[in-house]
Amino acid sequence: MNIIIVGCGRVGARLANTLDQSGNHVGVVDLQPSAFRRLSQDFSGVTVIGTGIDEDVLRAAGVEGADAFIAVTNGDNTNIMSAQIAQVIFQIPHVTARIYDPVREDTYRRMGINTICPTTTISSLIMSTIFAS
Amino acid sequence: MNIIIVGCGRVGARLANTLDQSGNHVGVVDLQPSAFRRLSQDFSGVTVIGTGIDEDVLRAAGVEGADAFIAVTNGDNTNIMSAQIAQVIFQIPHVTARIYDPVREDTYRRMGINTICPTTTISSLIMSTIFAS
Repeated sequence: MNIIIVGCGRVGARLANTLDQSGNHVGVVDLQPSAFRRLSQDFSGVTVIGTGIDEDVLRAAGVEGADAFIAVTNGDNTNIMSAQIAQVIFQIPHVTARIYDPVREDTYRRMGINTICPTTTISSLIMSTIFAS
Repeated sequence: MNIIIVGCGRVGARLANTLDQSGNHVGVVDLQPSAFRRLSQDFSGVTVIGTGIDEDVLRAAGVEGADAFIAVTNGDNTNIMSAQIAQVIFQIPHVTARIYDPVREDTYRRMGINTICPTTTISSLIMSTIFAS
């Protein structure tokens, strides 16, 4: 699969490394060149310095015809906007955005974007460690 | 239950509000006074400004005799240290720490602390949205 990842933080880099190692073609976008240090030394994908809400940046990363798009910068707004660009303009079939704000997560999930909300997910997991143990 | 939460970010505040509303006695610690704005207006627990690795700060929050302890600051080191203080010095029965670094998460889990690693959890969830849909 051809997969675009916007944001090369802990999660973005982990996904990029895993997907690259399992034979996918991965393009990673980040504003900070230093973020790419998190990629494995043998990472064989494409890295592009820039913002994930710039169509030209996304094109350079290989967004046209990509199978999946993952938006995991630290900013909800950037993730939401880039996910919408991927879905509407580039018509990527699988688009997932990390959204920290539970209220906005709910809104965008209803609009058809796969959303992951660490705030609710991690809170629920912590509650289960307290009340299940 | 008496529950101490170190770190009043999105997750800490969400847990504090939920646990407070369900009848628990909650003490929340954060270095930044502004963090407490995330608590509900009717939050009835204790808030203490300070670091979660200071025993006096933890005592002020009600750590002595507490039933559960949750460390969710943005710093892995602070979460690890405060969780160890809670477990060893104050002998809190249920101690949970958020640890972003998967390597350290594994180490401390083996030492008997309940650990939650958002990096691996969220990465796995995102993988499932791509390959299951």
